[in-house]
Amino acid sequence: MSMATRGIILHFLAVIACAAIVGCGGSDRLATTYETVPQKTQPAALANVKAGPFDGGRMWTFDYPPQRHFDTTYNFKADQQWFDDVRMSALRFASYCSASFVSEDGLVMTNHHCARESIEEVSGPEEHLLENGFWAPTLADERKVPGLYVDQLVEIHDVTERVNAAMDRQNTDEAKLAARDSMAKVLKEEAGKKTNLRADFVTLYNGGKYSLYLYKRYNDVRLVFAPEVQLGYYGGDWDNFTYPRYDLDCSFFRVYDENGKPLKTKQFFRWSRNGAVEGEPVFVIGNPGRTSRLNTAAQLEFNRDIQYPFIAGYLTDMVDVYKKYAERRPDKKEEMINQIFSIANSQKAYNGQLAGLRNEVLMQRRRDFDRTFRAEVEKRPELKAKYGHIWDEIADSRAKVRAVANDLLALRLGGLGMGGSAYLQKAAALVRYAVEMEKPENERGKPYRERMLELTKRSLSRPVSPDPDIEDLYLAKQLAMMRRMLGENDPIVRVAFGGATTPEEAAQRLIAKSVLNDSAAVAKLVEEGSQAIRACKDPLVAIARMAQPRYDAAQAVADAVRARDQVNNTLLGRALFDVYGTTIPPDATFTLRIADGVVKGYEYNGTKAPPHTTFYGLYDRHYSFVGEKDWDLPKRWLDYPPTFNLRTPLNFVSTNDIIGGNSGSPIINRNKEIVGVVFDGNIESLPGDFIFAEDANNRTVSVHSSGILEAARSIFGAQRLVDELMNGKIVER
Amino acid sequence: MSMATRGIILHFLAVIACAAIVGCGGSDRLATTYETVPQKTQPAALANVKAGPFDGGRMWTFDYPPQRHFDTTYNFKADQQWFDDVRMSALRFASYCSASFVSEDGLVMTNHHCARESIEEVSGPEEHLLENGFWAPTLADERKVPGLYVDQLVEIHDVTERVNAAMDRQNTDEAKLAARDSMAKVLKEEAGKKTNLRADFVTLYNGGKYSLYLYKRYNDVRLVFAPEVQLGYYGGDWDNFTYPRYDLDCSFFRVYDENGKPLKTKQFFRWSRNGAVEGEPVFVIGNPGRTSRLNTAAQLEFNRDIQYPFIAGYLTDMVDVYKKYAERRPDKKEEMINQIFSIANSQKAYNGQLAGLRNEVLMQRRRDFDRTFRAEVEKRPELKAKYGHIWDEIADSRAKVRAVANDLLALRLGGLGMGGSAYLQKAAALVRYAVEMEKPENERGKPYRERMLELTKRSLSRPVSPDPDIEDLYLAKQLAMMRRMLGENDPIVRVAFGGATTPEEAAQRLIAKSVLNDSAAVAKLVEEGSQAIRACKDPLVAIARMAQPRYDAAQAVADAVRARDQVNNTLLGRALFDVYGTTIPPDATFTLRIADGVVKGYEYNGTKAPPHTTFYGLYDRHYSFVGEKDWDLPKRWLDYPPTFNLRTPLNFVSTNDIIGGNSGSPIINRNKEIVGVVFDGNIESLPGDFIFAEDANNRTVSVHSSGILEAARSIFGAQRLVDELMNGKIVER
Repeated sequence: MSMATRGIILHFLAVIACAAIVGCGGSDRLATTYETVPQKTQPAALANVKAGPFDGGRMWTFDYPPQRHFDTTYNFKADQQWFDDVRMSALRFASYCSASFVSEDGLVMTNHHCARESIEEVSGPEEHLLENGFWAPTLADERKVPGLYVDQLVEIHDVTERVNAAMDRQNTDEAKLAARDSMAKVLKEEAGKKTNLRADFVTLYNGGKYSLYLYKRYNDVRLVFAPEVQLGYYGGDWDNFTYPRYDLDCSFFRVYDENGKPLKTKQFFRWSRNGAVEGEPVFVIGNPGRTSRLNTAAQLEFNRDIQYPFIAGYLTDMVDVYKKYAERRPDKKEEMINQIFSIANSQKAYNGQLAGLRNEVLMQRRRDFDRTFRAEVEKRPELKAKYGHIWDEIADSRAKVRAVANDLLALRLGGLGMGGSAYLQKAAALVRYAVEMEKPENERGKPYRERMLELTKRSLSRPVSPDPDIEDLYLAKQLAMMRRMLGENDPIVRVAFGGATTPEEAAQRLIAKSVLNDSAAVAKLVEEGSQAIRACKDPLVAIARMAQPRYDAAQAVADAVRARDQVNNTLLGRALFDVYGTTIPPDATFTLRIADGVVKGYEYNGTKAPPHTTFYGLYDRHYSFVGEKDWDLPKRWLDYPPTFNLRTPLNFVSTNDIIGGNSGSPIINRNKEIVGVVFDGNIESLPGDFIFAEDANNRTVSVHSSGILEAARSIFGAQRLVDELMNGKIVER
Repeated sequence: MSMATRGIILHFLAVIACAAIVGCGGSDRLATTYETVPQKTQPAALANVKAGPFDGGRMWTFDYPPQRHFDTTYNFKADQQWFDDVRMSALRFASYCSASFVSEDGLVMTNHHCARESIEEVSGPEEHLLENGFWAPTLADERKVPGLYVDQLVEIHDVTERVNAAMDRQNTDEAKLAARDSMAKVLKEEAGKKTNLRADFVTLYNGGKYSLYLYKRYNDVRLVFAPEVQLGYYGGDWDNFTYPRYDLDCSFFRVYDENGKPLKTKQFFRWSRNGAVEGEPVFVIGNPGRTSRLNTAAQLEFNRDIQYPFIAGYLTDMVDVYKKYAERRPDKKEEMINQIFSIANSQKAYNGQLAGLRNEVLMQRRRDFDRTFRAEVEKRPELKAKYGHIWDEIADSRAKVRAVANDLLALRLGGLGMGGSAYLQKAAALVRYAVEMEKPENERGKPYRERMLELTKRSLSRPVSPDPDIEDLYLAKQLAMMRRMLGENDPIVRVAFGGATTPEEAAQRLIAKSVLNDSAAVAKLVEEGSQAIRACKDPLVAIARMAQPRYDAAQAVADAVRARDQVNNTLLGRALFDVYGTTIPPDATFTLRIADGVVKGYEYNGTKAPPHTTFYGLYDRHYSFVGEKDWDLPKRWLDYPPTFNLRTPLNFVSTNDIIGGNSGSPIINRNKEIVGVVFDGNIESLPGDFIFAEDANNRTVSVHSSGILEAARSIFGAQRLVDELMNGKIVER
């Protein structure tokens, strides 16, 4: 689960803070609609500038295969054929994972956590295949998964020139953008006529390069093998993002052709006899989802000081709320425990990223790179004219938003969404309504105009109907957050607390005095309109009235820098490309990349994490936790046969650069042999969203090829699968 | 090794910094000769003041057994008999470890790392018992260890009244001290006449309480069982101070009586059938060596900002030096690797302590306690008069030393000892000689007077004879440190670097220009004396000349606060006792203590460290590191018999409060049964020298009683030992 869901969790949370603070992450930076400053590229002239210590990572594209880097780093001369074979052997698994062909008969390998839905889908009544695992003894037993598909990246076309030409013919930014979008459409249609491939228009380097990626989609995909979920997610949320690890997070599928026969494919990865050994170069081919590595130091410092601590505080608050709620409502206890677990996983991810942001060594390196990069830009007048202003402007806009960040975050009373107080949300909505209604209709926001107004009023007229067992907890946390951020002497905080010393006490008093859950009262307020709301004595409405002008003022500051921020973020990507060309890979775009690294342990916990783990450790962890379900083992594992070789490597770590979306990626040696399947990063890899430190302890965690074979053979007796993996094709017995 | 040697390593390093910076740790605070302010105790009146959140730990004395604490915390009513039995069953093992009786026939258990010397001692030629392990199949095979003894704490007498009475009869501080020392002697002599026990005079609470401890010493101690050192120190320096852990760090001895028969003892610990389970209260009885938990926040901040970073920097520098030296001198490579390893272990310990000091939560708690404690003192006029000034004075003296700390540390040119430059040492010694010789003889330091002067001159006249492959490295690091601490614009730094940009370049130039390795030149300088030294053009002598007055000025500041610091540190201990009585245990004094806790895992590395580990993990770690000797296993372990139960718990963690000196301590349940033997703390426990955080992740690491039995039975076939442990006595078969 880890890597697939990680993006989702983080995205959800980032929204909380980013909705209020523009430009706080890289989240809107990659949206192509904001790429308003097209320009001609000139990488060739400058491509040999040596990259500074930019921790931009190693997610290389197949558009610009890193042949020289492989040669200088590993003395490995990979030719175009090598890259072509590798690209064609790799797959995108549905819309969320990576995978690969591992036999000429269409056998596909990915993670167990990528296959969960599919396993559930084909599980018959009472079969509980997720829980029990699945193994098809014959081809006929393989089970087709409805709706499942895999995509193979068949062709890549550099379309930069045509796109730029179309854009150059236009004069305004808007027209240029429209021209680019039209050209993308044209290119995709052209491709559609020539082939039956699916075409994707891909923007690299924020518009430094454009490519057309043509995919072959396979729609008949059948489940072949999956271990029990207990093995495929061993250690559960606890062990997620950690290492040493003991996780058989793999599954196998098979692609069938139009005639319902196993697909014959020329390109596939053969299975390594021994897996990878310490120090050996290995390559991950997969589809990393999203990175934000172009952020300048000013942006990272903002995230470190404002955005991430806010989110971390919110998560801590929510854990407290759900704990207290579970005490009050024993019937909800189970549900709350699950809720808390899911938050704990987000906390782990956020705290991991925060630790990276707070690592002064990493931050100093980013500052150094900012300096080097800027110096390169300023050396050349044509670059200086285009990009010279970026860094100061970004720093300036961060400083401006910083100055209003407390008001922005603490006074957006409806901004916490599901973790916020329903009373404060209602109060804020009423005050917003009052403010809008005082304007002439054509100046109001959309919800307050024409037909929408009636809908808005109707929804506003409904009273809050809070769960009384949790509402005071939500409100108390929100008040506590306001006090934390604004200080106890802030006039709004003083009114909100009204002399109460604890937020709990304040919340209970406010709720007791409020009429916002009285339907008649609320409906009357809405009906009577602005003046009534302005005069209303409800204490929560009073708070909202005080908050509104300050929040609006803060928001105006943020709005004022938003457009410039977006342009500058886009320009930053272009500048990077203009200076460094393809020597630095572009940010991840959920398209195929190849990331190099070596198998390597690291220092942790005062000692060494080994390069690989073994099945012995699986049992150690099981018997070390008495009765904890995350480390339970199914009976067939507890009663392992004497032939089961516990010394076999189970998981291993390597220095490759990965991120959510890479789940299920094959990891291969230079002979294009599978040495494992990628399933996670260690806790030290979490800052990888922002920064990839070449020499730090961040690691990719993979299931070892030998562990997969040994489990299939000795625990499942899946000899047919073992034979196929060892021979690269179906073996008839 | 961990806990026994830890104190030594840390002490050695502390000396580097403490020699220059007085009062920087608690190192001289416990020296009784500095307890210059005796006073009458009055704990009873105030003993019921509730202790604030003081992280003073739980190393309770047997003088004041924590009956109420056990009752309220565990609902465990331990009577005096329980404490007496426990005390008599515990032992001090030689002068460096703890141990216990584990059968009525004098069987003694301690750590393997406490037994190393003894094992070596009894190992015959070619036996290599340390490497191969030892097991005596019969009593007759047990081997007497020459010189080895164990001490049993038989009686404790509170002698506070007599000591205070003797001191009260005197008027001056010096006389009071002398009276105390005389009384201590008298008390010991009296005890010697009445018994044949060894008497120790013990000062608790810095003189709040005095006790006479009477020990029975056993001198005939024989080796019974020891696993291979590879098992007794599994994971070597790497795994030292860490957990999860897989270390069979135990050994068994037997005490014999005067007739050469196994000692019959009434008090001993029986063996638990199942060991301890998660959440169960457990008790460690042993002899913790030294803690400095009374340090105020001002002292801890000083350690955090000045002392520890200085030592950490020095250690990093030394690793660099030895790495470069190993490159230049391949013949020394092995030696340097060992040197670096040993430094790495110190780095681990120092960085662990520094992490604790930098933990704002811990520091804030200490500040809170300082406030609470001080408020309690200031509430009562008689206490305020005696102690009210302590905190401000300590803070003031720290501030004063802080102001001169850079000069003190960077300009004490001979101060680095073995890691410093021989040239700078010689130059500083010559300049010191010149300065001293300019004074009238009776004002000079001892080495420059009368007969000593000739010896000093003779030694000064010898030139430096540096190893040319390392001297420039040492000097370069010392110059780098000076630049780091004083800044590049400091006049001394400017002279030392003389325009060179790197310290390496500067060091090489200085050495090239120096005459200090020319015997004739050096002898002439000494012969001609002060004026010649003052006029000498040697660049290193020039540096030393500039450094001397600044260093002396800084030293004068430090000297000026030294005496007051020592008095205040002593007073602080008294004040604690006067306010809190025996509700807070005194700092460790390498005397017998009992520390309570519960068996409990903890969060680490983004997941959970389990409450215990198993033998499976021993093999996982072995097979995870290919060919690394720290995780090697002897053949008898690799070829384990099928009856060997790998699920058996091997190590476990609990929340007890321990420190160096506790190695070998028994850990028991409330039925006085052995559940394990303590051998280490985890990395999170390292700040325990200063602070014991009740609710943090610091843990005691023990060998599990079941693991000991299972190894003895299945791997060594030591059935006689197993029978004796299970029955609490020798079982004839």
